Amino acid sequence: MGSFRGHALPGTFFILMGFWWSTKGILKYVYKKQTRTCYLSSKTFLRRTEIWEGVVAVLMALTGMVGEQFISGGPSLNLYKDGQWNQLLGWHHTTMYFFFGLQGVAQIICFTTNLLPTSLSKLMLSNAIFVESFIFYNHTHGREMLDVFVHQLLVFTTILAGLVTFIESLTKNNVLLELLWSSLIILQGTWFWQIAFVLYPPSGSPEWNLSDIENKMFLTMCFSWHYASIFVITGLNFAFITWLVKSRLRKVCTSEVGLLKSAEHEHESEEEV
Amino acid sequence: MGSFRGHALPGTFFILMGFWWSTKGILKYVYKKQTRTCYLSSKTFLRRTEIWEGVVAVLMALTGMVGEQFISGGPSLNLYKDGQWNQLLGWHHTTMYFFFGLQGVAQIICFTTNLLPTSLSKLMLSNAIFVESFIFYNHTHGREMLDVFVHQLLVFTTILAGLVTFIESLTKNNVLLELLWSSLIILQGTWFWQIAFVLYPPSGSPEWNLSDIENKMFLTMCFSWHYASIFVITGLNFAFITWLVKSRLRKVCTSEVGLLKSAEHEHESEEEV
Amino acid sequence: MGSFRGHALPGTFFILMGFWWSTKGILKYVYKKQTRTCYLSSKTFLRRTEIWEGVVAVLMALTGMVGEQFISGGPSLNLYKDGQWNQLLGWHHTTMYFFFGLQGVAQIICFTTNLLPTSLSKLMLSNAIFVESFIFYNHTHGREMLDVFVHQLLVFTTILAGLVTFIESLTKNNVLLELLWSSLIILQGTWFWQIAFVLYPPSGSPEWNLSDIENKMFLTMCFSWHYASIFVITGLNFAFITWLVKSRLRKVCTSEVGLLKSAEHEHESEEEV
Amino acid sequence: MGSFRGHALPGTFFILMGFWWSTKGILKYVYKKQTRTCYLSSKTFLRRTEIWEGVVAVLMALTGMVGEQFISGGPSLNLYKDGQWNQLLGWHHTTMYFFFGLQGVAQIICFTTNLLPTSLSKLMLSNAIFVESFIFYNHTHGREMLDVFVHQLLVFTTILAGLVTFIESLTKNNVLLELLWSSLIILQGTWFWQIAFVLYPPSGSPEWNLSDIENKMFLTMCFSWHYASIFVITGLNFAFITWLVKSRLRKVCTSEVGLLKSAEHEHESEEEV
Repeated sequence: MGSFRGHALPGTFFILMGFWWSTKGILKYVYKKQTRTCYLSSKTFLRRTEIWEGVVAVLMALTGMVGEQFISGGPSLNLYKDGQWNQLLGWHHTTMYFFFGLQGVAQIICFTTNLLPTSLSKLMLSNAIFVESFIFYNHTHGREMLDVFVHQLLVFTTILAGLVTFIESLTKNNVLLELLWSSLIILQGTWFWQIAFVLYPPSGSPEWNLSDIENKMFLTMCFSWHYASIFVITGLNFAFITWLVKSRLRKVCTSEVGLLKSAEHEHESEEEV
Repeated sequence: MGSFRGHALPGTFFILMGFWWSTKGILKYVYKKQTRTCYLSSKTFLRRTEIWEGVVAVLMALTGMVGEQFISGGPSLNLYKDGQWNQLLGWHHTTMYFFFGLQGVAQIICFTTNLLPTSLSKLMLSNAIFVESFIFYNHTHGREMLDVFVHQLLVFTTILAGLVTFIESLTKNNVLLELLWSSLIILQGTWFWQIAFVLYPPSGSPEWNLSDIENKMFLTMCFSWHYASIFVITGLNFAFITWLVKSRLRKVCTSEVGLLKSAEHEHESEEEV
Repeated sequence: MGSFRGHALPGTFFILMGFWWSTKGILKYVYKKQTRTCYLSSKTFLRRTEIWEGVVAVLMALTGMVGEQFISGGPSLNLYKDGQWNQLLGWHHTTMYFFFGLQGVAQIICFTTNLLPTSLSKLMLSNAIFVESFIFYNHTHGREMLDVFVHQLLVFTTILAGLVTFIESLTKNNVLLELLWSSLIILQGTWFWQIAFVLYPPSGSPEWNLSDIENKMFLTMCFSWHYASIFVITGLNFAFITWLVKSRLRKVCTSEVGLLKSAEHEHESEEEV
Repeated sequence: MGSFRGHALPGTFFILMGFWWSTKGILKYVYKKQTRTCYLSSKTFLRRTEIWEGVVAVLMALTGMVGEQFISGGPSLNLYKDGQWNQLLGWHHTTMYFFFGLQGVAQIICFTTNLLPTSLSKLMLSNAIFVESFIFYNHTHGREMLDVFVHQLLVFTTILAGLVTFIESLTKNNVLLELLWSSLIILQGTWFWQIAFVLYPPSGSPEWNLSDIENKMFLTMCFSWHYASIFVITGLNFAFITWLVKSRLRKVCTSEVGLLKSAEHEHESEEEV
């Protein structure tokens, strides 16, 4: 993983999954809010989506694990070679991917068999994120100041994301917690990209001075800007989905329940002040 | 911001907002408690207040951002100049103000469109406060002992305020949490003033010795005194508002519901033991 | 406070209050459980008790404050003398006592006026305990290893006690939390006595070596033993109170509700498995 | 305890208890889910099991305490000998066992007398685990890097286990929390075995280099692998128990409630999406 691609790959995975979770959370919330009187039977569809989500997570994890082990001088499944541990950093990354794969498996089992509470997949996700934090925390031994710092920020985000995911697995259907949690996942993804650019600048860029305090102060602020951008994008996403659901629903059920809905809507808006 | 005014400005903002939130919380609680039988239709008024609150927050954030960027040698929107980062401390402050502005925007959207849960504005506030803690934590590199210490206390207050705000956004209508949270905001504001007096004493005052342990011990205690004073003032505020609401209500609805209310009140007082 | 008596006084206060809270919690729980069918009107009595509790807390705080300020070379209300801070450690202790006094005042107001939620007094207590932790944390600058360690344990207990009290102020009527919280208060009290014996051994005892690691390891264990003893004593207290309430109630309401109660009791015991 | 057996003994205890709690949690959950219409009266049986669980816990604690005190040069109940503390490490271990014994006693009392809420035994367990963390935290003074690190991981697991147990004692019947908590207990047990193999390799194995960073990085990952294995085993256990309960129930109540159950099951599966 000690390369640009090695950081860009998990970054992309986290951004995709985070954005998908964010969109799913918004969709469910908006849909529920708009269709009190006109509820379409989308439950089987939703369940199928959850299973596919699990499959995608497993595939991502497998890609990551195979990539870490076999591409460009990975450990190739040898843990101990020539009397010493063989490329433990690569093994660390493999272990992290494995836990995310485990989450995918749990989600698939959870939604195909109906035997377990659905919050299991959230709990497993929170677990995978915490294990990631734990390993990253013990990962950057003896590196330079800025290298350690950017990984500390990663640990910081993952601990927060793990906590919010854990709280969310205990409460139910709180759209704000869901958005907060997926924002933190996306933040983690974009931060992986930032790390890639800082530590392994693509050809042409100048090197960063890894022991300059000014760089540390800039990255602190940069981290906040990532977060702010994610908020703004999530907001726009919310607005877009609301508009989409509203316009689509208008076609479907205007005729039948129009009067009922508008009456209820007024009532509701007063109620929520 | 490295000046008396640079600390007094955010201090004033936090004191004003904290005091306003405190008053609003008390008002809602006392009003609800006194008017079980005589509920005036103040919801539209309340909603309008919330929107104005958001507007004021945005204006304060803009003032702060403009002040940091352009007044007395700020970075003037140049992030990188002459091969190095340009006045990152000023940019840090701008970033903090920006997040508080974002909270204001979220509040305005939240209360004008009715599309989002109203606890969003609380969550955004908690976010803004946490981002502030995060940036302040990485802000005081290489300064003197007392300078670091007073900023640590600021980080400490903001983390607590952020946590309480977060808990409050999950629970609903707990007046004590609301008061606790706004007290911590006010504490932050008064502490900004204290920092201004310690680090940039106005002309005439003697300089503080920034490496004297005795000063640190005094400021520890001073911090507690600020907190105690805020408690006492909040208590007096509570008493004043209770008296106000009671005397105002007496005029309005004595004739009609007097007997009912007094009966109910007795019942209630037993109930709450 | 740098004396045997200065530590024994707050220790005694905490042990007394903790034991009283523990007893009150048990009493309320046992009473409620035993008297489903025969509820005596003890609410006015309970309310009066709460008010007296507040009065006692205020008196204790006043005793402590006066003692710290005026007895055996205290600061006598002079904060600044001869160009430097005057006995800040004494002022620290005064501040701590003041916050516990504030809690007493809040409790009195809370139970005499009925204007505030009753959990306010719990919240104020949690506040007072947290302020105590905060001040103790910044209190032991430049002392010897064992001196710092025993105060760290104090900070540790008070943070835990503050957290449990805070959680308890949010939930309601959880007898186990109430017992846990009062146990931690008693632990704090007995630990004050332990500190007194370690740092200021009464005449005749040998001095402790304040930089011996063995002593630190012993005190770690000793702290756990205090905790275990408090658990055992609380258990015995519980058994005693249960016996007392049962035997007293038998006299009062055997004749009337005997059959009803025994039937219900059987039902309940199955229910709670 | 400074021996292979001294670490293997508590390890075995924790694995056994953790596995038993995990199995009990699964059994209760699966049973409840499968038998909505055909509820067998197993409550007296369950209560008896809980009491036996307490007895086993007490016996384990006694074994540990006696072993620590009297086997192979333990302190033999002498706390102070020849002017200094006598084998404090052995006393530390005795203290930890004692708290687990206390938990057993609390559980026995709780389920024989019906006077206390049943969550008491969970709270006492959480207490015992926290005390264990606390003592281990102050236990490894002046040892080598890897020795300290493996004990730190133990403290880390126990703090997490204690927290989850505490949360579980406040909520009720959340099977996922119960599984999480028992997994952490098992993890602690297997980690004790790992420590035994690392610090006291059985004859024939080579010694570990206690100051090699590579070993630390391997153990970090190894810790995660333990955790992953426990997850997989818990999953298999869940599958096995589900199969067992289903096949056993089919024999008992097919004839009577077959139609009812299948109807309800379909309903439920939709409901939980």
